[in-house]
Amino acid sequence: MIKTIEYLDGVARMIDQTRLPQEKVYVDCRTIEEVGRAIQDLVIRGAPAIGVAAAIGVSLGADGIEADTFDTFYPRLKTQCDALAQARPTAANLAWGIERMKRTAQAHRHLSVDQIKERLRQEALAVLEEDIQINRRIGQHGQELITGDSVVLTHCNAGALATAGYGTALGVVRAAIEAGKRVSVLANETRPFFQGARLTVWELMEDNIPVKLITDGMSGYFMMQGGVDAVVVGADRIAANGDVANKIGTYMVAALAHRHGIPFYVAAPVSTLDLSIASGEAIPIEERRGEEVVNVAGQRIAPEGTVAAYPAFDVTPHALVTAIITERGIARPPYGESLQRLAETG
Amino acid sequence: MIKTIEYLDGVARMIDQTRLPQEKVYVDCRTIEEVGRAIQDLVIRGAPAIGVAAAIGVSLGADGIEADTFDTFYPRLKTQCDALAQARPTAANLAWGIERMKRTAQAHRHLSVDQIKERLRQEALAVLEEDIQINRRIGQHGQELITGDSVVLTHCNAGALATAGYGTALGVVRAAIEAGKRVSVLANETRPFFQGARLTVWELMEDNIPVKLITDGMSGYFMMQGGVDAVVVGADRIAANGDVANKIGTYMVAALAHRHGIPFYVAAPVSTLDLSIASGEAIPIEERRGEEVVNVAGQRIAPEGTVAAYPAFDVTPHALVTAIITERGIARPPYGESLQRLAETG
Repeated sequence: MIKTIEYLDGVARMIDQTRLPQEKVYVDCRTIEEVGRAIQDLVIRGAPAIGVAAAIGVSLGADGIEADTFDTFYPRLKTQCDALAQARPTAANLAWGIERMKRTAQAHRHLSVDQIKERLRQEALAVLEEDIQINRRIGQHGQELITGDSVVLTHCNAGALATAGYGTALGVVRAAIEAGKRVSVLANETRPFFQGARLTVWELMEDNIPVKLITDGMSGYFMMQGGVDAVVVGADRIAANGDVANKIGTYMVAALAHRHGIPFYVAAPVSTLDLSIASGEAIPIEERRGEEVVNVAGQRIAPEGTVAAYPAFDVTPHALVTAIITERGIARPPYGESLQRLAETG
Repeated sequence: MIKTIEYLDGVARMIDQTRLPQEKVYVDCRTIEEVGRAIQDLVIRGAPAIGVAAAIGVSLGADGIEADTFDTFYPRLKTQCDALAQARPTAANLAWGIERMKRTAQAHRHLSVDQIKERLRQEALAVLEEDIQINRRIGQHGQELITGDSVVLTHCNAGALATAGYGTALGVVRAAIEAGKRVSVLANETRPFFQGARLTVWELMEDNIPVKLITDGMSGYFMMQGGVDAVVVGADRIAANGDVANKIGTYMVAALAHRHGIPFYVAAPVSTLDLSIASGEAIPIEERRGEEVVNVAGQRIAPEGTVAAYPAFDVTPHALVTAIITERGIARPPYGESLQRLAETG
């Protein structure tokens, strides 16, 4: 099993997701800034994995601060955290991971700085370990929604590579298969970064789970043909009303699923909920460089001078979401109530 | 102005659309078989351009037949035509172009074989010339539907490169601009062959028409943002009830446009109508090799052994089509009647 991210001695080691599946190369980050850059450059991606990377990044940042007292230590940690929080704007888990680490530092303000650094190290490791357990619980809850002999369509990669392991949306698929159901996956390639083609297909093939690759524009065709029984995707941020920000193209899939009466499930840890935001309209959508659309596998696919847009996420309105699967259970509409309830059962 | 296809002395010269926009390379076809291969390999594509290529191909085929009488000439021509008709199954214009040439040969059966060959040559040239005129008329009718200051989203390339010149969907855009309207284009890149990124963006930039490139999955996002005023696409075959076969992904765009109350227009010559087919369910959908999805710009984007699907077209149900723009006028629902009327005004 490939490890998406590990926390070794003074090093956050990540498999470089920009180079999969051609090459299995690892990137070692030794500072919080390097972790921020790895997140920005999509070496590591996927909301839960970003949350884990953030926690490890903050621990690395703390280790680099020379200070004798909490009062000189913490402001410098906070400055580093604020910078890391800017790495990518959409995923709620980035802020969640950072906040958790800041709270840990504050909770141990009475300890020596060295002891605080040790607590932060342990907390980062806990975030990493917990993430896998959370995904297994998401899988357990989610697999009940998947019937035997079904085709699950997914967009982007909400798999082991988007998390510390097992995956959210693909965790649901794995759990359904572990429960003895025959499930195959229809994977949207997910332009422009090809997370589906490069990552989802790869990790499912590694696990011998049947998967067929399609282009994003084919999802409507396969739904019309009756070839999709359920859609399961991950999420980058979920607003209080159940609106879901996820990889660009997700909204299109949700709208088509709705049109065809196919259930549309979102699988995400509670750390992806942002109940401070009333609706998806307030979720910041990252705009990446158009060059990332125009350059494919190192080659231009459009003329010199092409203007391209790259909103990296879109928002699926809650009315299109059949259920939200978390480690604490399944939320159903009205999400205003059900998500609040899940958040409070922590 | 680039010529998509020319009929020179014994040569069908086509710009190689597999290599645009990086290289402007021409392919010379000297036999009907070579024309068939060029169609199959997407050197030339776009339903109207395929119709023109077919006509020229049949003329080249006729020239290669050594026969003294119509009765020995025609069966051999028919055999060649039947083979050419297999090049691609979905576009109605392929069969239309071939049928027109067969009818021309039959209409001149009383002439010498050399004279028949000459008539076929003239007919092929007429098909080519007429196509440009047809597109200008489509543009004239269609531009009335486009309001000033609007953003038109298009999928695939239904432009000059999909026709003998001017284009169908992009002909509507060109005519709107010639009529003094400010129109800009949002171009879906159109996976897997990138006709949008490679061809639509290129030919619009050549004409200084503002164009922004997006991935196919972004169309829903831009519609939700209010960034699309109309969708105009081409067609490969239109059934009697108004169901429209067009490039894979079109259905997805149509469903989203419908959801957002954005008009969805189809621009196509009457030669794309196939009133012998009651509904889209009977339109044959070409299945191409999954390798064409997995290999992008000469590089694999998915692991070795990936299973990929490539239905090359999908069918947009007539209920999602606001109007069908032809050279003979605009058809509105119910299409059963309006298309029949247009077909009869020939």
